[in-house]
Amino acid sequence: MKETTLKQIATELGISITTVSKALKNYPDVSESTKKAVKDLAIALHYTPNSFAVNLRTKESKTIGLILPTVLHDFFSKVIDGILEEAEKRNYLVIILQSNEKYELEKKQIDLLLSKRVDGILLSLSNETGEFHHLKTIFEHNTPLVLFDKIAKIVNCSKVSINDKKAAYDAVTYLIKKGYKKIAHFRGSYMPQNSIDRFLGYKKALEDHDINYDSSLVFVCDNNTDFEDGYENARKAIAEQPEIDAIFAVTDLVAIGAIKYFNERGIKIPQQIAIFGFSNWFMSSLITPKLSTIDQPGFEIGRTAAAILFDEIYSKKNNLPIVFQSIELETSIIERQST
Amino acid sequence: MKETTLKQIATELGISITTVSKALKNYPDVSESTKKAVKDLAIALHYTPNSFAVNLRTKESKTIGLILPTVLHDFFSKVIDGILEEAEKRNYLVIILQSNEKYELEKKQIDLLLSKRVDGILLSLSNETGEFHHLKTIFEHNTPLVLFDKIAKIVNCSKVSINDKKAAYDAVTYLIKKGYKKIAHFRGSYMPQNSIDRFLGYKKALEDHDINYDSSLVFVCDNNTDFEDGYENARKAIAEQPEIDAIFAVTDLVAIGAIKYFNERGIKIPQQIAIFGFSNWFMSSLITPKLSTIDQPGFEIGRTAAAILFDEIYSKKNNLPIVFQSIELETSIIERQST
Repeated sequence: MKETTLKQIATELGISITTVSKALKNYPDVSESTKKAVKDLAIALHYTPNSFAVNLRTKESKTIGLILPTVLHDFFSKVIDGILEEAEKRNYLVIILQSNEKYELEKKQIDLLLSKRVDGILLSLSNETGEFHHLKTIFEHNTPLVLFDKIAKIVNCSKVSINDKKAAYDAVTYLIKKGYKKIAHFRGSYMPQNSIDRFLGYKKALEDHDINYDSSLVFVCDNNTDFEDGYENARKAIAEQPEIDAIFAVTDLVAIGAIKYFNERGIKIPQQIAIFGFSNWFMSSLITPKLSTIDQPGFEIGRTAAAILFDEIYSKKNNLPIVFQSIELETSIIERQST
Repeated sequence: MKETTLKQIATELGISITTVSKALKNYPDVSESTKKAVKDLAIALHYTPNSFAVNLRTKESKTIGLILPTVLHDFFSKVIDGILEEAEKRNYLVIILQSNEKYELEKKQIDLLLSKRVDGILLSLSNETGEFHHLKTIFEHNTPLVLFDKIAKIVNCSKVSINDKKAAYDAVTYLIKKGYKKIAHFRGSYMPQNSIDRFLGYKKALEDHDINYDSSLVFVCDNNTDFEDGYENARKAIAEQPEIDAIFAVTDLVAIGAIKYFNERGIKIPQQIAIFGFSNWFMSSLITPKLSTIDQPGFEIGRTAAAILFDEIYSKKNNLPIVFQSIELETSIIERQST
């Protein structure tokens, strides 16, 4: 079947297109019987108003854009779920794009969303993104933007994240109070703010408990394959610094990589070495030993970021002032067998 | 900054809107110097052609819709990744929606996508979906549809899946050849085709190897929480049928739930009971014991479904005939410690 147009309905009923259009919009100058006839026929013919034409009139696309570093991650699945729940409530659609952790692709995806005239953008920055000129384009288009999870503090917009520094500080303080003395850190790469903050939290916790920070106990995971980074750094750490008695890993997947290495070598967790993760990935409670970790509320991060974005879209539409918000959601320590 | 319009550019340069429009489209009757002036100003003012107006002209939205039962699943993350890769190549955008395994929500999401005039729809059916009248609406709109993973054989459109019956048959035959005699099946709910087919493959493998099918060895997982279903059915299976020596589970997550129960009870895998999963979820190689399973190529399913959809969109646009395809991608047995 071809698309039903107003003209078809008009022709079938022998009335003008204007009357059909008015009937569908419930104008008072069209009789009830005509309205009924038009609406019945519209339903029978599966007429749907041309949404592009509607969009042209209202200048709204009722669509938002979401750019993630990757969809292949339990945490981001939860974030998507939270965003879709909020969008669903408001009858907004979500266009999803990946940056694959690449700056150039992130830039391209932003341009694509802007050319589609989305009403707002939700963005978690790629690990490569170190400068923010490409975000300026979003502001110049007067399009609301909310950064979440991997944010940049210097960008002037709303942000939703956790307090990574505090969460890492809590994790390392917990390890110190458990009696661990030589705590290594498997850190993330040097670019994203959350990786920097988790490292700073680690360092601060050591300093506040009179333990000297030793840079040779810090191992970088920068191959974007967390699991293998964890496995490889576990091998390196034990070879280079055999007296390490605990590891604070930047993600659960890094921690699980390390657990796999130690399990294979018969190194006992937590008796010989304790492992602490970050994000409370679903699998962290299913592996052996179960992983102690920081609970990072992915669903809530997605939900909150979307809610703020929709508020800003509403404010913009109604010419209300927009006040940027920086929300830090609570995290908590989950103690399991690995520590 | 407000949106830049052709009028603004025309006013600033003191030329007509028609000339601006022609200059941007590289018409030969506009001088090179005017073209350059217009283009430079368009760039400086961040002018982007109004994509809704473009859409009205071309009747294409360059957007496809994707409806998943849930985003909270490793398999569907891979599917999304495959779809986004194909869309990216063609500069198409993907609107993502969830049905939350509910028929009514699936119906609503389809209507929403049709009202947005997407160029095509990719759909994996919800577990609740038992009748397909809501898909008729898609055909009546003349919108290409490709079903993937959870498909319905009776619907007349292109489909991408695996041969679930054959894969299950292979898995159970493998267990029989390993010497297991009392093989239970933790099956999925009664609705989705893949759950039915995996059950039929299990039954056929038993019959072909002269093992009587015994319905009391089949346990249903229908709470949509695979992990807990697996855990709970493991408890039930051992209590009701203690002589069971192997379990073929409908998904890896069901299998992992069962593993957790047996690990907690000190029941040795595979010595006392073997476990076989389905889908080769990332974590299946990281748990203890590592899970034997069927490799289900999620990325490839997504990629293939999207490629077929884009072919059909192209054919429709160019008035070429559309021949529906039913693709079954290859699966393979992954043997690990649990069997």
